Amino acid sequence: MALFSKDIRSMDQLYLHMLQDIYYAEQQIEKALPKMIEKAGDQSLRDGFTAHLGETREHISRLERVFGLIGHPPKGTDCPAIDGILKEANEIAGDIEGQEVLDAALAAAAQAVEHYEITRYGTLIAWSKELDHGECAEILELTLAEEHGADDWLTALAQERLNAAAA
Amino acid sequence: MALFSKDIRSMDQLYLHMLQDIYYAEQQIEKALPKMIEKAGDQSLRDGFTAHLGETREHISRLERVFGLIGHPPKGTDCPAIDGILKEANEIAGDIEGQEVLDAALAAAAQAVEHYEITRYGTLIAWSKELDHGECAEILELTLAEEHGADDWLTALAQERLNAAAA
Repeated sequence: MALFSKDIRSMDQLYLHMLQDIYYAEQQIEKALPKMIEKAGDQSLRDGFTAHLGETREHISRLERVFGLIGHPPKGTDCPAIDGILKEANEIAGDIEGQEVLDAALAAAAQAVEHYEITRYGTLIAWSKELDHGECAEILELTLAEEHGADDWLTALAQERLNAAAA
Repeated sequence: MALFSKDIRSMDQLYLHMLQDIYYAEQQIEKALPKMIEKAGDQSLRDGFTAHLGETREHISRLERVFGLIGHPPKGTDCPAIDGILKEANEIAGDIEGQEVLDAALAAAAQAVEHYEITRYGTLIAWSKELDHGECAEILELTLAEEHGADDWLTALAQERLNAAAA
């Protein structure tokens, strides 16, 4: 954050800022997922988180390709949004006694993370097209599809098993 | 956050906590929207934010009905996620020079807010059904539809005009 100057004066600069924001967010998610895997009791939830950790590493490497395509070194920037979402996930998990209730809460927390990524990648894809970065848009579409996929399996698992087990 | 005790021991308690979380979040959004209206330059964006401010007040009153249905007084709880999302929106807006770029950023920031609400209401509706709070689920479905609607018009406005004007 610039306190005394306005650093973003063009859509190119806003685009770069948003890339740096989601690059930082993906790195925080990569750090958070192993702790969520450890806390999860349901085997499908653990397996899903583990698979998504692999996808997250691929998302980071795709973002590095996008940075390369627009001629900037990969770099993160502060993202209070993902920090807040992960802090909330951590706090609620620490407040819960009982594995089944914890699993339902972990799935919901992971969906909040997915939705943050879905909105950011959606915006970045629209901006990529507007700025004629067609190849960047194609790369980011792959990631967006995987974030939607993660949200969908979490919904299915919660509705098929986790919520009923917790209730 | 309880540092030394685990306060949530049942799905009913987790459900109440999530209601308190989104109740606080809606109140923060109600406070943030007038500032976003003030910053927006595009008339449709201002009008949309103004309409959504009215919807947000209705969402708060619907949540108060849901609290009543489950026999608890309406109360908010800390929600670091919405605090982080709104902090990020505020910081990025403060960093931008140029109304067109600012409008594109404001629309994206508002979509991040909508997606947080979409994931939380989606979870609350699933949990309402699991806990046999059918009337709560029906009330929350009305709000979820409006959050999706807000996200959709923001996407349409950004793609039809805001992004191109900023680029």
